[in-house]
Amino acid sequence: MLVYIAGSGAMGCRFGYQISKTNHDVILLDNWADHIMAIKENGLKVTGDTEDLVKLPIMKPTDATEEADLIILFTKAMQLPNMLQDIKKIIGKKTKVLCLLNGLGHEDVIRQYIPEHNILMGVTVWTAGLKGPGHAHLEGVGSVNLQSIDPNNQEAGHRVTELLNEAKLQATYDENVLPNIWRKACVNGTMNSTCALLDCTIGQLFASEDGVNMVHEIIHEFVTVGKAEGVELDEEEITKYVMDTSVKAAHHYPSMHQDLVQNQRLTEIDFLNGAVNKKGENLGIDTPYCRLITQLIHTKENVLSIK
Amino acid sequence: MLVYIAGSGAMGCRFGYQISKTNHDVILLDNWADHIMAIKENGLKVTGDTEDLVKLPIMKPTDATEEADLIILFTKAMQLPNMLQDIKKIIGKKTKVLCLLNGLGHEDVIRQYIPEHNILMGVTVWTAGLKGPGHAHLEGVGSVNLQSIDPNNQEAGHRVTELLNEAKLQATYDENVLPNIWRKACVNGTMNSTCALLDCTIGQLFASEDGVNMVHEIIHEFVTVGKAEGVELDEEEITKYVMDTSVKAAHHYPSMHQDLVQNQRLTEIDFLNGAVNKKGENLGIDTPYCRLITQLIHTKENVLSIK
Repeated sequence: MLVYIAGSGAMGCRFGYQISKTNHDVILLDNWADHIMAIKENGLKVTGDTEDLVKLPIMKPTDATEEADLIILFTKAMQLPNMLQDIKKIIGKKTKVLCLLNGLGHEDVIRQYIPEHNILMGVTVWTAGLKGPGHAHLEGVGSVNLQSIDPNNQEAGHRVTELLNEAKLQATYDENVLPNIWRKACVNGTMNSTCALLDCTIGQLFASEDGVNMVHEIIHEFVTVGKAEGVELDEEEITKYVMDTSVKAAHHYPSMHQDLVQNQRLTEIDFLNGAVNKKGENLGIDTPYCRLITQLIHTKENVLSIK
Repeated sequence: MLVYIAGSGAMGCRFGYQISKTNHDVILLDNWADHIMAIKENGLKVTGDTEDLVKLPIMKPTDATEEADLIILFTKAMQLPNMLQDIKKIIGKKTKVLCLLNGLGHEDVIRQYIPEHNILMGVTVWTAGLKGPGHAHLEGVGSVNLQSIDPNNQEAGHRVTELLNEAKLQATYDENVLPNIWRKACVNGTMNSTCALLDCTIGQLFASEDGVNMVHEIIHEFVTVGKAEGVELDEEEITKYVMDTSVKAAHHYPSMHQDLVQNQRLTEIDFLNGAVNKKGENLGIDTPYCRLITQLIHTKENVLSIK
């Protein structure tokens, strides 16, 4: 198969690197000029659990021309429409598209570019970091869950699952992937936005009784809206999962903190708390915690003149 | 009259200074050792609209012994119970107590120490700054509104109003002071807490559409709870007042920003948004914006290890 990684940041590099070790072909797509140049000149440098240097083709999305068998979407949430627009040339009738973005509601965007029977939605708990242009740092283990959104085309999902497993990415074909996507969004919606606002680590957030109370109210809004959309969510199980994650990741600043506070980049808030509030509005469910958090993050983006 | 200023920060110094220019006697009370020493040694230095240096008695609250005719309360909200405890010796049967603290609900605390017929509640829009120990900086003009909370003892309120007007403090005896107290609390509850959280000026908050939307929701919660408590509040009028204030004070960081961000001191959040949420809970009115803002501020206090 010819596999494109659409959005080759840290996670895209991990998946691209691991797939490059199989018999499939991988092409990385990205818009960061220094990153493209570094990988073209020196290859992709990998450190962490493995040390490696691999030659991998990389180019701008608009420069890709050969029809894809599989495209794995790994952009930041707000870059998705532009990416799908830029890669139109490589999307053929049989091209499968696997979305592994953070957040909620991406299937609605993807449907505008890809026929439903070719869309796979997934979620991963692998992690990765970029140490600089062309340098991915890969530690720890993870997994991927994915599903064809067209119930009549499960076969495509199974084939992609196989491919990811050849690349040792621990993939599972999931008969009901949506609860997993929502669960991860709920982790991000409780910790990322609040730690970004409060400029604190996950451990600092959960060390405060008020912090934990906020988290419970946010989880409740996510679960209420998700259930109303027909997603099978168990509030108790999700709460336990969030609490366990908060212990494991206590010393980390979540990715939205990195975006907003450390790098002054736009956040993915509209695809987390903002998405829940918007879905809630459409369903007639009030979600004031998600709404206020979204407003606070956007106001902060504005204060920092991030566009 | 013998007037004590209980809490002689910037505002207490303004009132103490202006009253010292009348025929009444003033004693400043405060717990800041450097401030007491500076004023004892050099007098109170006044700059701004007037340049002056005045001898004024100042002591710790627990050192005051002579019975007061009037005590003007000007502590930070959370210091009020300790102050009332510390000044028990100067509270006689005829001692009037005027509360000019920011925030809501102080009358409930004061009632535990002072008989109702001696309590006056008020609100002021005078401003003042401290440039250092013993140095008050006074600019601009303001006014005071006040009322006896015992309808059978309006006379006391009128006498205190007269005294404040001798001191050119532009006081008005207000037949219905509660709406004014709530209006000021609403200004503080919309701008102070949010600007402290977002580390921004009032102008930056209101420059963002999301910021203005938050403000509207917070005002709505204040007005809903206030009205349910029987306070005559006009949401449209308060909104206009908040908007006008935001233009006049656009370049300022509000006092809670000074407390939390600049000086890492405990905030008055429990007497602003927190008070509205607590009153709301007692009345069966949900106030999620006030509750979440209170939780965020307390979590931030905890992150900064402020106690």
